[in-house]
Parts: sequence; C-alpha cells; structure tokens
Amino acid sequence: MKLAIIGSTGSIGKQALSIVGKDVQITGLACMSNVQLLYRQYCQCGAQWLHIGDPAKYRELRSLVTDPAVTISSGEAALVEFAASCDYDVLLTSVVGSIGLLPTIEAVKRSKRIALANKETLVVYGEKIMQLAAQHAAEIIPVDSEHSAIFQCLQGNPQKSVEKIILTASGGPFFGRSKADLDAITAQEALKHPKWNMGKKISIDSATLMNKGLEVIEARWLFGVDQRNIDVVVHPQSIVHSLVQYCDSSVIAQLGLPDMQLPIHYALHYPERQPTALKRLSLSEVMTLTFYRPDLETFPCLQLAYRALDAGGTAPCILNAANEVLVEQFLMGKIGFLDIARGVERALDKFSVISDYQLSDIVQTDAAVRRFVRGD
Amino acid sequence: MKLAIIGSTGSIGKQALSIVGKDVQITGLACMSNVQLLYRQYCQCGAQWLHIGDPAKYRELRSLVTDPAVTISSGEAALVEFAASCDYDVLLTSVVGSIGLLPTIEAVKRSKRIALANKETLVVYGEKIMQLAAQHAAEIIPVDSEHSAIFQCLQGNPQKSVEKIILTASGGPFFGRSKADLDAITAQEALKHPKWNMGKKISIDSATLMNKGLEVIEARWLFGVDQRNIDVVVHPQSIVHSLVQYCDSSVIAQLGLPDMQLPIHYALHYPERQPTALKRLSLSEVMTLTFYRPDLETFPCLQLAYRALDAGGTAPCILNAANEVLVEQFLMGKIGFLDIARGVERALDKFSVISDYQLSDIVQTDAAVRRFVRGD
Repeated sequence: MKLAIIGSTGSIGKQALSIVGKDVQITGLACMSNVQLLYRQYCQCGAQWLHIGDPAKYRELRSLVTDPAVTISSGEAALVEFAASCDYDVLLTSVVGSIGLLPTIEAVKRSKRIALANKETLVVYGEKIMQLAAQHAAEIIPVDSEHSAIFQCLQGNPQKSVEKIILTASGGPFFGRSKADLDAITAQEALKHPKWNMGKKISIDSATLMNKGLEVIEARWLFGVDQRNIDVVVHPQSIVHSLVQYCDSSVIAQLGLPDMQLPIHYALHYPERQPTALKRLSLSEVMTLTFYRPDLETFPCLQLAYRALDAGGTAPCILNAANEVLVEQFLMGKIGFLDIARGVERALDKFSVISDYQLSDIVQTDAAVRRFVRGD
Repeated sequence: MKLAIIGSTGSIGKQALSIVGKDVQITGLACMSNVQLLYRQYCQCGAQWLHIGDPAKYRELRSLVTDPAVTISSGEAALVEFAASCDYDVLLTSVVGSIGLLPTIEAVKRSKRIALANKETLVVYGEKIMQLAAQHAAEIIPVDSEHSAIFQCLQGNPQKSVEKIILTASGGPFFGRSKADLDAITAQEALKHPKWNMGKKISIDSATLMNKGLEVIEARWLFGVDQRNIDVVVHPQSIVHSLVQYCDSSVIAQLGLPDMQLPIHYALHYPERQPTALKRLSLSEVMTLTFYRPDLETFPCLQLAYRALDAGGTAPCILNAANEVLVEQFLMGKIGFLDIARGVERALDKFSVISDYQLSDIVQTDAAVRRFVRGD
C-alpha cells in the first residue's frame, strides 16, 4: 500500500511513520517547515515527492536531496498539486488548520482513501466533503481516538439502526470546577492536561470543551447522524474512546489505553486489523471507569457547537474561526478563560449564516470572523 | 420469519414471545409440563405444532386444542421429531439440560438458524456441534448476555484478528469473600444473587463461578478461540456484557442494562437490528463501572472449567455432570458450598477422558459421572 502524508513532521505524522510496517510504501511526505526532520524521514522511508510548506526552506531541502527522481515542491498551491498528483493509495492528512482542506478535496476527487486527522476539513466543510466523497466513492477514515472508536463500533451494523453516537470526553483539566473558579484561570493552568501533552491550541480547546464541540460537528458529518442524536459523556480515564447506541438498545464501545497509533494504524489497514505491539488494556488493572454528564453551564463552548450545527451552513466555520483567534488571545494573556466562550457566542450572534455555501464562502467567512474577533 | 421455541414456558421462552413483533410467525411451541401456559401461548400466538414433554400431560393438551390441523406431541423422541419436521426458519432452544442437544442437532442438519440458549449443547458437545453447523451451513447464534455480546463485538471484524475474548462475570453473591468465609454458606445465602433472580441451579453456579466456567467452555467452541485466549473479568455492575480484544490492541465491548430480551431479539433479527422499547443505558446515570481479577483460590470452579478444556474430549461433560449433581446435593443441604468444587475435581481426577468421542460417549459419560457423584 502506498501512503502519502501531509503533516509528516507533526505528532500524528511521526507516529504514523513509526507504526507502518513493510507492507506500506511511503510515496510522499509533506510538512510545513521542519526541513531537517523531513529529510531524515526521507532518508529512512524513501519517498518520490517531498513538499515543504515554507518557500524559504525550499533551497535547503533541494540541496539535501540529491536524487533527481524525487519531486521537491513548496508553497500552498504545490501542496494541492501534491495531493492531486503524488502516487498513493492512502493520503494521511494530519496537518493542522484549514490548509488541510484543499488537498483533502483533491484526494477525494481521485477516489482515494483519506486517513483524516485534520479537524477543520470536517468542521467547516464536513457536509460538502462527505457528499463529494460519496460521489467519488472515496473513503474518509477518521484518525483520532473518538471518531475512530465510533467508526469501529459501526462496523458490521446497518447504518439505519444507529440511534445515538456517544462521544467520550476526558473533561479537561477543569472538570468538576465551577464557572466562578474559572474566571481567573491562566494559560499556564489551562495547558496542564491531566492525561497527556498536546499542542497548545488543542489543550485550551480541551479545557473549554470546545474540542469536544468540534468533535460533535465532525461526527455529525462523518457519520451522517443528526446532532440531536450525538451525546457527550465525560469519562476522565479516557479508556472508553466512544460508543454507538443502536435502535435495539445495544451499545457498542471501543476501548483501549490512550494511544494515537491505533487509530492511525486502523485507518491504514481497515477493514483488516493488523497486529501491533501496542500495550494492551487490562480492565482489572484500570479497575474503575467513571462517567458524568458534561457541565454545560460551566463549559458553554460545547453547547455553542450544537448551536452552530443547528444554525447550519457556515455557522460551524464562524464558531471555529472565532475560537481559533480567541484561544490565541487567551494564550497571549489578552483575554480571560471565560472570554473564549463569550467571544465565540458574540461571533455567532454577529454573523449571518450562509446556508447554501460554497468553498469561497467558507474562505471569506473565516477571514471576516477572524478580523471581527481581532477587532481589526 | 417462522420461529419455533423449545422451552416456551421457561424464562427465555416467555421473554421471546413477549418481544417478537408481527414479522415473526410462531410455528411451534414445546415445553416440559406447563400445559396451561403452553395453551395460553398457543391461543395468543398460534402454532402448528405443540409439544409437551411430560407424556402424562398429553391428554390434557389434546383436549384443550380443538383445531385438528395442530400437531400435538409428547415425549423425548417426539421433541426430536418436532425439531426435525416443524416448519421454522429459527429454532430457539431455550430448554435447560441435555434434552436440548438432540433437537439442536436436527435443526443444524436442516441448515436452520438456531438461537441457542441451551448451555449443555455447547458445554458437552460444542466441538462437534460447531463442526456439524459448518458442514450444514447452519447458524448458531448465542442467546445469553455474554455470548451475544461477544457475537456482536465480532461483527465487521476478521476472525483471524481476534486476540482474546474477555467474558465479564458479576462475581456472584460472594464476590470479595475469602475461602474460609464460604465454608459454612447455606443454600439460602447462595441463592441471593445481588443483581437478579434466576433459577436455583444457575444461582448456585453463579455463586461458585462455575457458571462462568461453563461460559468459557461455550465461548471456546462457539467462537473457535483457544481457552488460553479467553479471560474472565469480574464486573459487578453487569453493564459491560463482554469484550473482544483484537490483534491491533483495540477492544470492542457490548454494553447495556441487563435484559435478556436483547440477546433473544438480536439472535432472531441478526444481522439486522430491529427497534425495541427496551430501557436505554445512560452511562452518566450508572456513573461507575468496576473490574477485578477473579479470585481463583476462593472460586476454584472457574479454574476447573479451564482444566476440563485442557483435558479435552469428554472432560467438559464430566465437569458438567458432576457439577449438576453436586449443586443438587448442596441445595438439599447434603454437602457444603466448597464441596461442590471438591466434588467436581474428584470426578475430573477419577474419569479418564475419551478424546475421540461420539454422542453415545457423552451420554454414557454423563450417566457414569452422575452415578459416581451420587455414590450409587
């Protein structure tokens, strides 16, 4: 199987390269700016196409790679070309941000399998991308713990028998705290996730529960389930990665020790399951699993994501753009923790939704919301 | 779909009749001796064939049923004939004891679906019945919480990727007690199951963990998984009904509120899932799920079941026959609680195993073990 990776030097990309076996041939590697790591990855795995996002790094990469048969490219347009022309069976889109959207569309048009770890594609363009994937018989397989869990729980069951999707949430570092407690929270406190280290943006999203809100939006489109049938349950141990409830009352869950390598591995090999050496779950060692209703009063971001889905059209794009800017502002100490939700709500109040939207509407809405939230 | 039920007046049979929809036509009803209930079931659901096990009750049934088109039968040989000739798509075998074996074999030979709630079929003859089912392309779908859970968790996954089956056990009324505590346990104490009311035999089996041992044997044959890859974990809340661990480390579990109607319903409609009005699980209401390693020192019956599987051949039959007699003796106050395991172990020590066995060896072994344990 031929695999190309967009975002190869990021966390997901590195884990993907560490887990692939000899049956997987790496054909393309793309990253933003880490030339040295990209080159090392190339030396280790080979590749026919190397892409570096930052044009300023192009020459450095060019000089390192001596094989003239390797295509070297740079810049945003060339990344789309990478997705459109590189030889692969599976494209792993593990880049962060809206830059992942256009390459994913190209892979869909080529009827490829997309191992999708780019949240924005589904959050801002999920409805359209899933329609396009159906048209082109492209497979979109989620690469994150929760959606991979749901995808696994759906196997072998008729789609029409799905009654409810239940996303689990760790609850973040402030689980159990009251709203008053959170007023004076600093970025430093919010970055201390109880379970694992992540990037700053996603750590804050995890603390506000916006992360789970975005996952609800992703699940809405990925699985074609109405948001009224998507629930969130707080599960601090993060052992049950998510669940599906069926119309006969049966609930199927996927469990495991938290490890991103499993969803990556599963997305590559689905519908097969290939052996891994990943640590096995022992329930009698874990001993206790707990579940709580999320506190929507204290963490309004989750509710705002449902509101965006109810509004439809470009509303999730408004939510996402506003949240990104507000998280930046919070990390820089410009606004308080609770101002993130307040700012997102203001943006949803301010912008009218374009129901029948095109990709260009997404791009324009995204830019306009960012300007508004920045106060430009 | 045409359904015939062996054991229609028992707990499973009654629940099956209460849950079937209009798409299910009842064609045959068989029970041991409860003529009045059998007749009421016939009046409510109709049937072309009614069977009463006890020959003394034949005339009573005959006089109640006025329609000459209805076949009325009685006695053990006629029950086999019922399975061999009654018109059905699915045979629900929910009778208790070895009497369920021969009718099940008939249904297998007719390439029918068997919704199997008769433990003995798999415990004493599991290897053979599964071979026969494969030969005749008959479907054996388990009707009990644990095996139905495993069956559901296996859907959509390649058989060769199964690494381990994990059966959950409530732990019974004496979970957490030490061996010394159990010496003086009375039948009355042992019958108080913390979670639900069951028949006396199964309640004692649940208290000794022999019930789980028998389930390990059933799972061994039903799913073709070596006993070394079948684990038991104590889970007092009985919400996770069982789990399957795959070779990539992923674990799939089936959850729900304890209700036998789901496995019955699922076995009838598989691979579809038909809507039910059964109560839905709310994890945030349950809140806490706990898991413990079983205490094999205090509850040796579970270990003895593994020993019987290791010995192979007729050893599970020896285990099962000895246990049945010993449970009777315990219920009559003739022996102590811990004597059940001791007696089973003595029987396993005493009898040599017939590896290449026929059905007649099972019948003879069963009788010989019972005589030995009774001290006849």
